Amino acid sequence: MSSCEVDAPWKEIARRKRAERDAAIPADWKLDQKHLPKEIGEPENVLSVPDQCGILTAKELKITSRYSARGLISGITSNHLTAKEVTAAFCKRAAIAQQLSNCLTELLFTSALQRAESLDKHLAEYGKPFGPLHGLPISMKDSFNVTGVDSSIGIAALCFKPAKSNSPLVDLLLSLGCVIIAKTNVPQTLAALDSNNNVFGRTMNPINRLVTAGGSSGGEGVLVAMKGSMIGVGTDIGGSIRIPAMCNGIYGFKPSSGRVPHGGQEAGSLYENGRAAIEAVTGPIARSVQDLDTFLKEVVPRAEMWAEDCVPGNWGGKEMKGCGKNGTFVVGIMRRDGNCEPLPPVLKVIEEVKQKVTRVGNIEVVDIPTPLAWTNCQGLANRLMAANGTTRMVDLLEETKEPLAPWMQGRFKRSQARSFAEVRDMQAQRSSLERRMLDIWYHTDNDGLRKRKFDALICPVAPHPVPPIDRWNAVGYTSSFVLLDYPAAVIPVRRFDEGDLELGKEMGGSSLGSWDKRNRQLWDEKITDRKVYLDTPLSIQVVAPKLHDFELCRMMDVIDRALRATGRDSKL
Amino acid sequence: MSSCEVDAPWKEIARRKRAERDAAIPADWKLDQKHLPKEIGEPENVLSVPDQCGILTAKELKITSRYSARGLISGITSNHLTAKEVTAAFCKRAAIAQQLSNCLTELLFTSALQRAESLDKHLAEYGKPFGPLHGLPISMKDSFNVTGVDSSIGIAALCFKPAKSNSPLVDLLLSLGCVIIAKTNVPQTLAALDSNNNVFGRTMNPINRLVTAGGSSGGEGVLVAMKGSMIGVGTDIGGSIRIPAMCNGIYGFKPSSGRVPHGGQEAGSLYENGRAAIEAVTGPIARSVQDLDTFLKEVVPRAEMWAEDCVPGNWGGKEMKGCGKNGTFVVGIMRRDGNCEPLPPVLKVIEEVKQKVTRVGNIEVVDIPTPLAWTNCQGLANRLMAANGTTRMVDLLEETKEPLAPWMQGRFKRSQARSFAEVRDMQAQRSSLERRMLDIWYHTDNDGLRKRKFDALICPVAPHPVPPIDRWNAVGYTSSFVLLDYPAAVIPVRRFDEGDLELGKEMGGSSLGSWDKRNRQLWDEKITDRKVYLDTPLSIQVVAPKLHDFELCRMMDVIDRALRATGRDSKL
Repeated sequence: MSSCEVDAPWKEIARRKRAERDAAIPADWKLDQKHLPKEIGEPENVLSVPDQCGILTAKELKITSRYSARGLISGITSNHLTAKEVTAAFCKRAAIAQQLSNCLTELLFTSALQRAESLDKHLAEYGKPFGPLHGLPISMKDSFNVTGVDSSIGIAALCFKPAKSNSPLVDLLLSLGCVIIAKTNVPQTLAALDSNNNVFGRTMNPINRLVTAGGSSGGEGVLVAMKGSMIGVGTDIGGSIRIPAMCNGIYGFKPSSGRVPHGGQEAGSLYENGRAAIEAVTGPIARSVQDLDTFLKEVVPRAEMWAEDCVPGNWGGKEMKGCGKNGTFVVGIMRRDGNCEPLPPVLKVIEEVKQKVTRVGNIEVVDIPTPLAWTNCQGLANRLMAANGTTRMVDLLEETKEPLAPWMQGRFKRSQARSFAEVRDMQAQRSSLERRMLDIWYHTDNDGLRKRKFDALICPVAPHPVPPIDRWNAVGYTSSFVLLDYPAAVIPVRRFDEGDLELGKEMGGSSLGSWDKRNRQLWDEKITDRKVYLDTPLSIQVVAPKLHDFELCRMMDVIDRALRATGRDSKL
Repeated sequence: MSSCEVDAPWKEIARRKRAERDAAIPADWKLDQKHLPKEIGEPENVLSVPDQCGILTAKELKITSRYSARGLISGITSNHLTAKEVTAAFCKRAAIAQQLSNCLTELLFTSALQRAESLDKHLAEYGKPFGPLHGLPISMKDSFNVTGVDSSIGIAALCFKPAKSNSPLVDLLLSLGCVIIAKTNVPQTLAALDSNNNVFGRTMNPINRLVTAGGSSGGEGVLVAMKGSMIGVGTDIGGSIRIPAMCNGIYGFKPSSGRVPHGGQEAGSLYENGRAAIEAVTGPIARSVQDLDTFLKEVVPRAEMWAEDCVPGNWGGKEMKGCGKNGTFVVGIMRRDGNCEPLPPVLKVIEEVKQKVTRVGNIEVVDIPTPLAWTNCQGLANRLMAANGTTRMVDLLEETKEPLAPWMQGRFKRSQARSFAEVRDMQAQRSSLERRMLDIWYHTDNDGLRKRKFDALICPVAPHPVPPIDRWNAVGYTSSFVLLDYPAAVIPVRRFDEGDLELGKEMGGSSLGSWDKRNRQLWDEKITDRKVYLDTPLSIQVVAPKLHDFELCRMMDVIDRALRATGRDSKL
């Protein structure tokens, strides 16, 4: 045994794990050195490498880039495509994405191709698809259990301990006909916004290697943006679906709790789930609202049958009417949360969205003053997320003498669970915030009848653009909607351009507190070169009331169409 | 100050409170001595006193006994009745019920009549009802807050402290046009199954004064059974809606959490709500399935607008089809929970129900072996209910030197909250039980598709008939469905008759444990004279999966019609 193995057993485990992962990429799928990023501190957009590298055939390029999820499924079930050629194309492209951005943890190409073959056989034999998502290539965050595959979440102590059973969502997705082609990278401890860990390393943003790829579902965000998977399944407690969606310029949907099976994942926590404090939720990341809808439409109505943490849900039904006069949609704009003042480009995009959406006929847009209850959400969400303590995670790290990732240092340490009195008090505060937030959505008219005021709210995803690596700031804009259990989703609007730089112009106003101070540093030219933001995605968040997930998806579509109706966004 | 006031300040408070209550009954609504129960240890069924006492006019008797809730509302809104005469009739009858059974805490006759007048005025002025429940006389458990009225829950320290605002459900019900005519009695601490406290005394069962009237919504059960209110609003954590419904031979519906606003009540607890451990739910008690439906149909779809603890809900929609072949309804029978073997008349009634329901064309009835997960629910529910500790309640009792009610002695003492680690562990166990119970409802076929197996389950409400006062045994048959958050309701089947006595015949089998041992004493002729059960109601419980409340109500209707279709139940 070498001294390295004794002093830092995690190193050998990580080496073996990465070697195994690299070996799963066939030699003819390996990129030529000239296509690999240079690691020279340049932005280096690698999104077009799959088109240029020559590894994918013209048909494979078409399969991976020209179809919607629904279109692919139709193509397969109408015998214009086979599940096997679709799966092969996505596996290839995922392998390329992995070489360019380090987004994968487990490469399930062999089992995916076998499954695709059996789906093709099923279709040929029975003349009907195996399920409504027959042949759809998807990827899942590393925390999901797939029988026989590690759920190491980037922790050495959890490597080479394959899962003994599937997570309920995996069983459900397989019953629908999905093909799982890979699992994807996450941050150490899952509680960071940049996907970096000792076992798999850091996932890089394919648009710009200087900015974060986001987390904790960072691998999903990158793989979907690189078209290596049609749907990425992530989880979100502080923003872990929405943040990578924003960082990679794609769509992310954090459902209400109970819409998508969430339980049965490896979270590195001592406890089976977070229901006593605050619980993460599972949801999709995709290239379009339509693809999100395709996934949710099949999962939501079946969720209660597969998972004890889900509730009955329809997806669809009667035509949606807005809550304004004559069925007009009413959208509220909340520009700032009162904790972190959004940096100028964030406010600018919100205003642009307001203008664009207002121009559409059947939407009314109304500005809402910051509700104090919303301002209070961030602190409470942080305290609830910390309530479980970190003992098992620290034990796991110590087991193989793993060091903390740089961003975790000073932020993460062994902590015990809070007392029940404290947690109970936090839950009472949470109820009180939920109650106060009801007044955002509803008002009582003179007859004493309650009426809905807004179909959806629009607000920032974060108070800053996609920041440099390891510099994501407060998550209050996203965590609030997990605390409140409102479905919340991300729509990309456009890319940050030269006009957004406003070089030499300070943002003005004074700091609202320590979070705000750190946020302002991201716009302070003495500290941050604003040019780092060039070409990174600017996005918005859309929010609906608790369990109105179908409605949120429809409102995303309404708003997304309004944004696409004009020219500027064509850059995305 | 008398020595009594110093030694036991609660006595004077209780005296004043009762005097105030008695004074709210007008002299001409007072029963003649000959109609009052004799307090001589005889069963004394007083249900027919309202018909015989001469206080109610023929029209008032008709109003209070011949209409459904929907019929009353139609009568008022079509100007065949006035809200005022309807309210007056119910106030009168409630006053009589109070004198016979001590079921009320707060008599709101004056404000109810004022409100009824204003509803009549509204109808005359605008030509349309104020709301869909225009003029419906209802009553509420004492724990609900009505502005300006005490929510003492029978605790002296909480008397003469009128509520400063309405509970959200009260606001919602008023917006619908309901008239609240009274609040009703509860047990000391709310955590007993017999409604007895130092302030208001004990509520008596009007069918048989020797058996319990049930609790904790005991006053509601009695008032509705005596037709002093159309709908009684109760709450249930261990069975507190379903137990009084059974004891009084009426219908009770414990919804899933989130269907009916629950928050904002006085629970005598230190904490605003039980979300961190286990939470009670609010639901209706009524004379028929149809009346339950009338209430839930209007409340459920609006609940999310009025209360932060509610979720979106439709009531109705497409025609319901059963999950069996050709849309046949499939009902599972669970005869025993594995903790307390049901006494012979309970098993007998379950078998009778099975036979009657089987005779109906479109229902298939299937026996289910006791699921071990169900057996495990009782202990966990008990531990979760105890998790919050009792400090505030004990402080309140000590504040006025109140003694414990007899049943509470030895069962209730000062206890601290559990640790968060313990509670979290309990919630993990709860998730595990929920997961195992999924297999009761669903199975996966050869194609990997999940399918529903049962439309509803039928099981006992309790392992015993309505027991003598203060002898209700384990609540596992009811508390399990709060732990699992399944909607669960009670249907009365028939009265206990001579043929059920089986005098001299022992029940056989051996004790399953201490709960079972105590239960068997209720059938042991050396300890209990079985004749006490004569004429008391025998009921069943019907259960549906989480949040399938509408479906449960429809299945209740299907089962209830099957039971009414034959003769024996006509006794009820």
